[in-house]
Amino acid sequence: MQHVHSFAAGQWIAPGAGARSIASAITGDVIADAGNDALDVQAMLAYGRDVGGPALRALTFHDRAKMLKALALHLREHRTALYDLSYDTGATKSDHQIDVDGGIGTMLVYASKGRRDLPDAHVYLDGVPEQLGRAGAFMGQHICTPLQGVAVHINAFNFPVWGMLEKLAPTLLAGLPAIIKPATATCYVTEACVRLMLDSGLLPAGALQLVSGGLGDMLDHVDCQDVVTFTGSADTALKLRGNANILSNSVRFTAEQDSLNASVLGPDAVPGTPEFDLFVKEVQREMTAKAGQKCTAIRRIMVPQAHEQAVIEAISARLTKVTIGDPRDAATGMGALVSAAQKRDVLDKAAAIGAEATRVFGDPDDFAMSGSKGAFVPPMLFHCADPDTATRVHDTEAFGPVSTVMGYRDLDHAIALLNRGQGSLVASVITHDGDVARAVAMGAGAFHGRIYFNNRDSMAEATGHGAPLPHMVHGGPGRAGGGEELGGSRAVMHYLQRTAIQGSPDILTAVGNRWVPGATEHADKPHPFTRVYGDLELGDTFNSPSRTITLDDIETFAHFTGDTFYAHMDDAAAKANPFFPGRVAHGYLLLSFAAGLFVQPDPGPVLANTGLDNLRFMKPVQAGDSIKVRLSVKAKTPRNNEYGEVRWHVTLTNQDDEQVAEYELLTMNAF
Amino acid sequence: MQHVHSFAAGQWIAPGAGARSIASAITGDVIADAGNDALDVQAMLAYGRDVGGPALRALTFHDRAKMLKALALHLREHRTALYDLSYDTGATKSDHQIDVDGGIGTMLVYASKGRRDLPDAHVYLDGVPEQLGRAGAFMGQHICTPLQGVAVHINAFNFPVWGMLEKLAPTLLAGLPAIIKPATATCYVTEACVRLMLDSGLLPAGALQLVSGGLGDMLDHVDCQDVVTFTGSADTALKLRGNANILSNSVRFTAEQDSLNASVLGPDAVPGTPEFDLFVKEVQREMTAKAGQKCTAIRRIMVPQAHEQAVIEAISARLTKVTIGDPRDAATGMGALVSAAQKRDVLDKAAAIGAEATRVFGDPDDFAMSGSKGAFVPPMLFHCADPDTATRVHDTEAFGPVSTVMGYRDLDHAIALLNRGQGSLVASVITHDGDVARAVAMGAGAFHGRIYFNNRDSMAEATGHGAPLPHMVHGGPGRAGGGEELGGSRAVMHYLQRTAIQGSPDILTAVGNRWVPGATEHADKPHPFTRVYGDLELGDTFNSPSRTITLDDIETFAHFTGDTFYAHMDDAAAKANPFFPGRVAHGYLLLSFAAGLFVQPDPGPVLANTGLDNLRFMKPVQAGDSIKVRLSVKAKTPRNNEYGEVRWHVTLTNQDDEQVAEYELLTMNAF
Repeated sequence: MQHVHSFAAGQWIAPGAGARSIASAITGDVIADAGNDALDVQAMLAYGRDVGGPALRALTFHDRAKMLKALALHLREHRTALYDLSYDTGATKSDHQIDVDGGIGTMLVYASKGRRDLPDAHVYLDGVPEQLGRAGAFMGQHICTPLQGVAVHINAFNFPVWGMLEKLAPTLLAGLPAIIKPATATCYVTEACVRLMLDSGLLPAGALQLVSGGLGDMLDHVDCQDVVTFTGSADTALKLRGNANILSNSVRFTAEQDSLNASVLGPDAVPGTPEFDLFVKEVQREMTAKAGQKCTAIRRIMVPQAHEQAVIEAISARLTKVTIGDPRDAATGMGALVSAAQKRDVLDKAAAIGAEATRVFGDPDDFAMSGSKGAFVPPMLFHCADPDTATRVHDTEAFGPVSTVMGYRDLDHAIALLNRGQGSLVASVITHDGDVARAVAMGAGAFHGRIYFNNRDSMAEATGHGAPLPHMVHGGPGRAGGGEELGGSRAVMHYLQRTAIQGSPDILTAVGNRWVPGATEHADKPHPFTRVYGDLELGDTFNSPSRTITLDDIETFAHFTGDTFYAHMDDAAAKANPFFPGRVAHGYLLLSFAAGLFVQPDPGPVLANTGLDNLRFMKPVQAGDSIKVRLSVKAKTPRNNEYGEVRWHVTLTNQDDEQVAEYELLTMNAF
Repeated sequence: MQHVHSFAAGQWIAPGAGARSIASAITGDVIADAGNDALDVQAMLAYGRDVGGPALRALTFHDRAKMLKALALHLREHRTALYDLSYDTGATKSDHQIDVDGGIGTMLVYASKGRRDLPDAHVYLDGVPEQLGRAGAFMGQHICTPLQGVAVHINAFNFPVWGMLEKLAPTLLAGLPAIIKPATATCYVTEACVRLMLDSGLLPAGALQLVSGGLGDMLDHVDCQDVVTFTGSADTALKLRGNANILSNSVRFTAEQDSLNASVLGPDAVPGTPEFDLFVKEVQREMTAKAGQKCTAIRRIMVPQAHEQAVIEAISARLTKVTIGDPRDAATGMGALVSAAQKRDVLDKAAAIGAEATRVFGDPDDFAMSGSKGAFVPPMLFHCADPDTATRVHDTEAFGPVSTVMGYRDLDHAIALLNRGQGSLVASVITHDGDVARAVAMGAGAFHGRIYFNNRDSMAEATGHGAPLPHMVHGGPGRAGGGEELGGSRAVMHYLQRTAIQGSPDILTAVGNRWVPGATEHADKPHPFTRVYGDLELGDTFNSPSRTITLDDIETFAHFTGDTFYAHMDDAAAKANPFFPGRVAHGYLLLSFAAGLFVQPDPGPVLANTGLDNLRFMKPVQAGDSIKVRLSVKAKTPRNNEYGEVRWHVTLTNQDDEQVAEYELLTMNAF
């Protein structure tokens, strides 16, 4: 028997008083125990806040992203140990891949997005500076900084690895320490994964703690700098959400709970189309993967009334081929539910659905594995003939391989049925018709955290109705809990505090580490293109000499490039244009001359011009006008050990000091 | 006596059974009554959802922004009527300007931001498309669509107009109908403002309803498509937040409640500096504006220990000059609290603070107006000698002209004291030192919704510690309620549901109304530059012929523009650069030649190239290579009645079809 430990304030703590025993989903035999009433949860909070938080906050977003990458690669190296433990949860090898590899993959995406979408700094800038006064002496900038508390993650039993890592990755990336509390039924897998991470030595002390068993009264001691997340049943979510301390301290709480996800067969996806076959395949896979124990699984199947029977037959034909049994057996297509208690719950819920719908496939009292002591059930398909008056099919989540087919009259009816779930994690629509997609997005978007469209064009690459991807938000309104996870850097924001900063341009530059127009310009040093990356300071500025634009310049440029647009060539025609006073210089001529005015010809620290952002032409330039360039260091981002990206704020002004163009220039500069 | 009506399901409803009477803050006499127990709150919800919502959702974001502008201008025209009513709330003329003009100004900013930051469409695109498969056949895009319910706004007594409009503007801009429930004490002002808006005829039916008096059991009937917001006391917030229906349906609830805002005199801002005087002025103004009844008012004043006495003296000297009295009198600097009940509450809280701090200015039993029957109190300044052991000064919000001076040892101590508020709306720091600003932002940002820095550089334009601006978020963690309002389009998002859309590029294009790379290209029509705005469809594409780049081109361009960077001129030096295989063409040469390849010389619908975004050079081009351009319509935005902006997705490829550059081009095109 495995004694599942907690990891609290730097110590591994064995099960003790109050420990609960854990049975194998396959055999029903006790295989482990977990829990210790003596766990000092307040010491855990303090350890996270006082030890883990400061260590994580000392790192930049990029430092933490690199740490995530190393952690994920370490876990990948040791993943078979996690597979081996996972069979007793009832899961098959392909289920493990969703859980273990899916979790590691999510962490890798966060490692990569962290370096691409977040700065190599301690402050994240949210949006652009806002000019709050006429002259630009008082500005605003939103920043995000890490909360100074702990994230308490209360996870569900179905994904002991992915469920932890998909929350842990954005938490650590944000700079917040985490306390993980896995569901007891499968906590032995989570404990093994936590041991791997801690033993890797990649995490600072205090960044990760584990509660195997009950949380005690930890939630009575969280405060406004802590975050509590929960994945699991609506009943438990309601209890946690209503915790007096959480309410009175406005503690951030996000939940991902019951969800009556639906899949719609588009009106265009009639039998015989690639979409019809795709739909049947996706539904069957979602029903049986993880034995239906996925919060995103399809619980409601909506099809045009004309095709109800065809769909039922096609799904049933595929379900017949699914072998139920010991997940260690390679022939097994669907394993067991996690526990006898869950089996009872699923059968109760299926019976409730059965009061409104007819079971058309699967008999829990008569199927291949029904003799086993394990928590096996067959896939059960129901048909609800009157989904408008039915209520239980729209609000009863049987957390197993249970789903209900219902017919719709037209697309509006399908949308109304979709929304009867009162908020869900995901709806899918199999359609090849953009108008159908648009109508569903507009009519049902407000009720769903994700809408998955698939058809012949995307099916070779589509990732499946049920798969939450790290790039896209996961969560949903109402019954789904009202929370949001994942979605790239959106998830990182859940662990940061957004603060509106107001002040002078110099103050905003100091706080945000990005030069704000109006802040001090350092124009008294050598040309910034002659200085290496490390010598450049925000605000370092080059003011070019000016160059007069001649009509000959415009003619030459036009014929050289082929850009003989009339506004450059024909004064009368240009005058008739609402934007121009007469013949004007090409915008690209101005850009090119500007480069000629600031470039340093000889080899030096500037290696390449890699791009340009937010170019706006503000005032036309005519022959006889002259232009000059101002170039200031706006931001710096290291890229590797040899060079970094410099973002320059560039303005072109004319002989009257009026701005004619503005843009941001990107260069790579040697260290 | 004014009978303050409700506006429910299209009808004005007079006070009835259960009505409460409302007294003047100045005289104590009853001036109005409000409330009706028979109000049908469920019918109001239904009217908003079934009548107001569909009408608002039929409009685009730009349509709604224009509606806001018209509403604001209408209110501005009638604002004196609102001033006249507002004196009885105890407020002065300059207080009215904060409330009435501030509210109208906020609406105008939303009207303007709505047209600049949001699309002229029904769907808001959040972020960029995510490629989810290798070949780009399956993509992701986050969209936001309006919730399909109602926003119930429960407002505080202190800003009967601004408090309504600052929430209403983003609500209507999002496309959600609102039910306003003002605090009863000042609801007669709100009712007048609502009448102005309804009588203007600018709003669709059902977009705006009003509850004067109690809300009844409305909150027991809200669901996952509704939003409830609250501004007021922590006690009431806790009661609402804990509503069983709100909790069990995960109804969006945001609160803005008590807040122990602080202002810090920077270590550099010693007596004699402009910052010292500025600090004293801001503190006095925040204490006495609205008689201290501002949720952002300064409750805690933190100063270097060496300067405690100097600060107390300087603030007291300014407070002495504030005349307390009837706000209709132009000489009055500070009016009354809103009611006798509030006066009792403020005196009770001041007494609690007095247990830990010494009152150094203002005696509620002995001041100029103390004989009046109105709810007058004097400004009261306290000094807390030991802020580390004190608790009440950090957690007691006396909602009146009450504030406490406390000394700090060093900046870390000041940050620790700031954070003792356990979450606040705003902290301010008067400093001319960027390092001080950075340290406070990093150390205290996580505890504050806004940090306001001011100094000699910004003071001419700074808007004041206490002023929430529509551009910047207003709200704060923990004790401040954990909510967020304003912040430009951020506030609009509170009334939209974010949904992750997954599908083929064509499906995403159909849903989001923005062409996604990989979606169908329509290249069989005439050159898109020859067709007017209205004839252009997303995906309309032009494929240019190719042009070979010669060494002579590079030489000519270099000498013509002056850009003789070595990578273009010297093969050996270029080879030594990590980015280049040898001499390469200028990036601007490629851009310019590209324009030559796609331009249409004669007058036509394309009026001007106005800008360029997200240019990235991806592969060097050498002499002998050839380039061609592909240009596709990516998005369209009408700008006025004559022309609209077209955003083109542009790719440059070489003779091997490798991408050498990518960007988005902006043009103005005639209708």
